[in-house]
Amino acid sequence: MREAAGWPTLEFWFEFGSTYSYLSVMRIEALAERARVGVVWRPFLLGPVFGAQGLNTSPFVAQEAKGRYMWTDLARQARKHGLPFRQPSVFPRNAVRPMRLAVLGADQPWIGAFCRAVMRQNFVDDLDIGDPAHVRGALAQAVDHPDDWIARANDADNRPLLRAQTEAAQRRGIFGAPTFFAGAEMFWGDDRLDDAMACAAAMR
Amino acid sequence: MREAAGWPTLEFWFEFGSTYSYLSVMRIEALAERARVGVVWRPFLLGPVFGAQGLNTSPFVAQEAKGRYMWTDLARQARKHGLPFRQPSVFPRNAVRPMRLAVLGADQPWIGAFCRAVMRQNFVDDLDIGDPAHVRGALAQAVDHPDDWIARANDADNRPLLRAQTEAAQRRGIFGAPTFFAGAEMFWGDDRLDDAMACAAAMR
Repeated sequence: MREAAGWPTLEFWFEFGSTYSYLSVMRIEALAERARVGVVWRPFLLGPVFGAQGLNTSPFVAQEAKGRYMWTDLARQARKHGLPFRQPSVFPRNAVRPMRLAVLGADQPWIGAFCRAVMRQNFVDDLDIGDPAHVRGALAQAVDHPDDWIARANDADNRPLLRAQTEAAQRRGIFGAPTFFAGAEMFWGDDRLDDAMACAAAMR
Repeated sequence: MREAAGWPTLEFWFEFGSTYSYLSVMRIEALAERARVGVVWRPFLLGPVFGAQGLNTSPFVAQEAKGRYMWTDLARQARKHGLPFRQPSVFPRNAVRPMRLAVLGADQPWIGAFCRAVMRQNFVDDLDIGDPAHVRGALAQAVDHPDDWIARANDADNRPLLRAQTEAAQRRGIFGAPTFFAGAEMFWGDDRLDDAMACAAAMR
């Protein structure tokens, strides 16, 4: 959370394996600063959410035609927003390790930089974001002592945090990522980030 | 098709039962005139397309959380575009009858007015768009002699047109509606109408 005291907030529910979450992770902090809105980072796992819909993988894998289109659309959207993009050779990537760090550090000043570093690994550099060396590499771009945070994330006390947050997502009616909440108002998809931000900003 | 000679064209694939097609049907002609792009109306049935994905109804019915969100989002989008909207009491409505007329009249000057009339019935006035009296009522808003067109649409020679166009949609990789093509470039969803229009306009 980076908001100044008294700023309204926007909840940002996302997944490192999620393609459209890539766009929102890269864009959200700049938009929020301009709108004077604080971002509340809410990482959660898509796997159990899709599982509850009867899917054992991403809908973009389950539905071939939709998946094919998605990569074309994602590349166009990245270009439109001036973001680098390369289609990953593996999709969807298992994101549990970096997600554990994100849920632990969600209120830390480094959360945005860490999340962007993980997303660049997945959607620009085509790296395995589940590899501990890459997780450490992404965290090292954001904090001075990455190993302290990694030890805490792997601690038995902290491991349940990600599952709890994923269950909270399901209770909120979340069915995909990214999802935003301005108060009780829900917005789904990177296409709604601007609307969600405006809605949050209007709550001041 | 309403373009002047030499205007580039945008193919518009849609369904009268489709919620986000409502927004695009209401918006597309004004946007196209401004961009000096011709609209090529391509009605097709979503049922067989969803059927090929293993669904026997709309994904918004099959996935309850997504469906609930969709109605909130659709109402917000309609408000943003200054369009009237009331959630229909029946969803999805069977659209075969008005779709047969749309496929027959796709190149006629009245196609836009007819499609908007049907969509207002479904998403503003909460009327059964499959009822022959309402089909006639919608067509009467667009043409002088609705019964001539209705007779032609019900003719055995013309009935296969809609199925053939639906099969063409599937061969093109269409998985939902609305879908736009600017040349070979595919865009899915009312959210991409502006991008699709700009892409078509750039082809002059």
